[in-house]
Amino acid sequence: MPAELNTDVLNHIRHAIELGQEQHIRQMLAEWYPADIAEVIRQLNDTEALIVFKAISSETASEVLLELDEERREILLSSLSTKQIAQQLDNMDSDDAADVISELPENIQTEVLSQIEDITQASDIAELITYQEGTAGSLMAKELVRVYTSDHVSQCIHQIREQAENVDVMYAVYVVDEVGRLRGMLSLKRLIIAHPMARVEELFEPDIISVNVLATSEEVAGIMQKYDLVVLPVIDTLGRLVGRITIDDVVDVIRESADEQVQRLSGLSDDVDPNDRFWRNSRARIPWLLVGMCGGIIGSRIIGAYETQIRIHPEMAYFIPLIGAMGGNVGVQSSAIIVQGLANRSIISNTIIPRLLKELGVGVLNGLICAVLIWSYAFIIQDWQLAATVSMSLFTVILCASVLGTFVPLTLNRFKINPALATGPFVTTLNDIIGITIYFLVGRLLYGLF
Amino acid sequence: MPAELNTDVLNHIRHAIELGQEQHIRQMLAEWYPADIAEVIRQLNDTEALIVFKAISSETASEVLLELDEERREILLSSLSTKQIAQQLDNMDSDDAADVISELPENIQTEVLSQIEDITQASDIAELITYQEGTAGSLMAKELVRVYTSDHVSQCIHQIREQAENVDVMYAVYVVDEVGRLRGMLSLKRLIIAHPMARVEELFEPDIISVNVLATSEEVAGIMQKYDLVVLPVIDTLGRLVGRITIDDVVDVIRESADEQVQRLSGLSDDVDPNDRFWRNSRARIPWLLVGMCGGIIGSRIIGAYETQIRIHPEMAYFIPLIGAMGGNVGVQSSAIIVQGLANRSIISNTIIPRLLKELGVGVLNGLICAVLIWSYAFIIQDWQLAATVSMSLFTVILCASVLGTFVPLTLNRFKINPALATGPFVTTLNDIIGITIYFLVGRLLYGLF
Repeated sequence: MPAELNTDVLNHIRHAIELGQEQHIRQMLAEWYPADIAEVIRQLNDTEALIVFKAISSETASEVLLELDEERREILLSSLSTKQIAQQLDNMDSDDAADVISELPENIQTEVLSQIEDITQASDIAELITYQEGTAGSLMAKELVRVYTSDHVSQCIHQIREQAENVDVMYAVYVVDEVGRLRGMLSLKRLIIAHPMARVEELFEPDIISVNVLATSEEVAGIMQKYDLVVLPVIDTLGRLVGRITIDDVVDVIRESADEQVQRLSGLSDDVDPNDRFWRNSRARIPWLLVGMCGGIIGSRIIGAYETQIRIHPEMAYFIPLIGAMGGNVGVQSSAIIVQGLANRSIISNTIIPRLLKELGVGVLNGLICAVLIWSYAFIIQDWQLAATVSMSLFTVILCASVLGTFVPLTLNRFKINPALATGPFVTTLNDIIGITIYFLVGRLLYGLF
Repeated sequence: MPAELNTDVLNHIRHAIELGQEQHIRQMLAEWYPADIAEVIRQLNDTEALIVFKAISSETASEVLLELDEERREILLSSLSTKQIAQQLDNMDSDDAADVISELPENIQTEVLSQIEDITQASDIAELITYQEGTAGSLMAKELVRVYTSDHVSQCIHQIREQAENVDVMYAVYVVDEVGRLRGMLSLKRLIIAHPMARVEELFEPDIISVNVLATSEEVAGIMQKYDLVVLPVIDTLGRLVGRITIDDVVDVIRESADEQVQRLSGLSDDVDPNDRFWRNSRARIPWLLVGMCGGIIGSRIIGAYETQIRIHPEMAYFIPLIGAMGGNVGVQSSAIIVQGLANRSIISNTIIPRLLKELGVGVLNGLICAVLIWSYAFIIQDWQLAATVSMSLFTVILCASVLGTFVPLTLNRFKINPALATGPFVTTLNDIIGITIYFLVGRLLYGLF
């Protein structure tokens, strides 16, 4: 049963740790799922975590390790000998084992690899760690079932029985030719239904989607989502089947890239978790705060240039926050729509001009609505000069921000730079500055005229 | 092969539509995957889309329909008779068919249902549309393979052959008792390896995770991600197996909720797509712009109260944008960390106080760094009174924003309100106002003292 984790359970475990009741902890966690144990460990400090980790069985331990973040895993692994680490890796799927081993120092990597008992597993891991992070090769696992085009169904079933030991969930049986090139797949359903003497050649589905081992993980996620795939075979440049990627690995990629976009939007420079240590949390935020500070200082210089104006018309200062905030809001809205459209591939490139025109249209409409409202307000509480200044500059600011918010991410994307960089504090700061410039320019013009 | 969609291909199709070459379009798209055809249709206007839709085969058409958004699907379906719609639904999995039919007007729903040839499919769909949107029931499909605890493996294989026709991908074979209660599952791998006369009772895995039909889709996504599940059985309140949810449906839930968070953060009130119509795009943005306007107007009243102060010390106005922007930035940073932590379940509730303290600590550190920097700047360009005012208020503003950004989403979450509401324009606007209030209060105090 999935465990319900709350502060009571946590306090109970902490209490047991304090009293050194390892046996009690072992019994308590014996029936738990690894994901639940990992959730407990995440809430504990390093010393407590180590005690819990030591109390669980070796097989559960390797699954728990996979659920933890890199920092925690490193601490727990450093308490084990290389022999024990090798045993843990032997329990894991090849792709997970490769992820874990690549976090270790290089000299320990070789030592651990040489101590893995299962030679196939060791060589699979050794192959997988050569692929660069963020490629299909780094996502794939080596465990899969393959049969040959020339096999009979009965031979297939025999082969599957032999190979199946290494495979946890069997999604599909891949069909390869005599030199190992991927030819297609055989669904298990079909295999179960088929006559024992039927040939694979007659049964297999030839038209399947595969991905090159060098493709990026974003490409892999895009293909699997678009074509609703649960598993995707990976081939090398010669077309030979080298591994497979399952959707659960891609769920992580999707989640991570969505989280990244949220972090960009909210001005966090690093992957921050609420349970992160104090310094890391602080460090992830400082860069964007400094960008905001620079923006604020530039803004102060622009306003400073209009000192005399403010002395005569202090009411000009009233609407500085409004102009700045609205420019920032509109800019973020526009850029978020574009960035999301690019990420979902619902925007085809080469269509910058029509997008800009549409965005300009929406900007004109929303700008007019806001301008009329603010005109009425400023006219009632002050005079028509201020009303005209605020409304005209608000309209211009909304228009500029719409165009800029659209143009910047599309341009970044064209030059193959991550368009998400354009969202969040950067766009806000830029639009703040542009907004204030426009506001005081319009103000000087209008107050000067009348 | 997946098709490479670019403006050239699109222009080619548009050209063929203009010339009325339906045969050419049919041939061109015959080898394409439904997802690619849907991508083309998304870029076309309604009349063009209808021509492409009519040109493809009926089976491809039903898959294409599922890839499109609701508005487009409605337009394409309205060109079909109820008989034709019924045929399309017959081609789909029960869960997809239920999604599509529930978008139709109620009087048409009954008519379409009565015309579906496969009675099981019709009654499955009729059951599925009774579940509320956002529940496990609305996500699940009825197609699954079930066997009884008392069966032999050979009986199983016979049953699977019979049931397998309705199942596209066979993830697992569910084991139920004589009254249909879920008892566990039998992996296909095990079934293939087992002796024909072995009993299901000896082979099946009893300890499986299932979900109640009334659970929310967020709960389903959470469970499947946490326990790395590819398929999750759904049971009713009596424990009877009623359906199954696959990970690809949950990928959509994850993506949608991530997209929603991005939209909240960027101040979009509705699900906006860059290809959306003009009015919808404009309407989705106006609400938050009005919130920003109200904030700006409140800000203007606060500054207005210090008119005399500004006349004497116009340099006070210089730093208004800086104070406002920094408060907004820090607030969004803090709330985004909390909202993301709550969504990922890495925050256990009941821990408000320690979080606030930690956030306060980070706020003090980052506030000090920023305050020292701005003090130096303001001292160099102006005088120490202004330097003291700006730096002291900046520090206070950063501290307040950190606490508020943490407190608001945690509190909303406690009262079961979506904490994501607290991110984006709302927090920014609130912090803007608080920031300006603090700034001028500190300013009056300091300038008054010396």
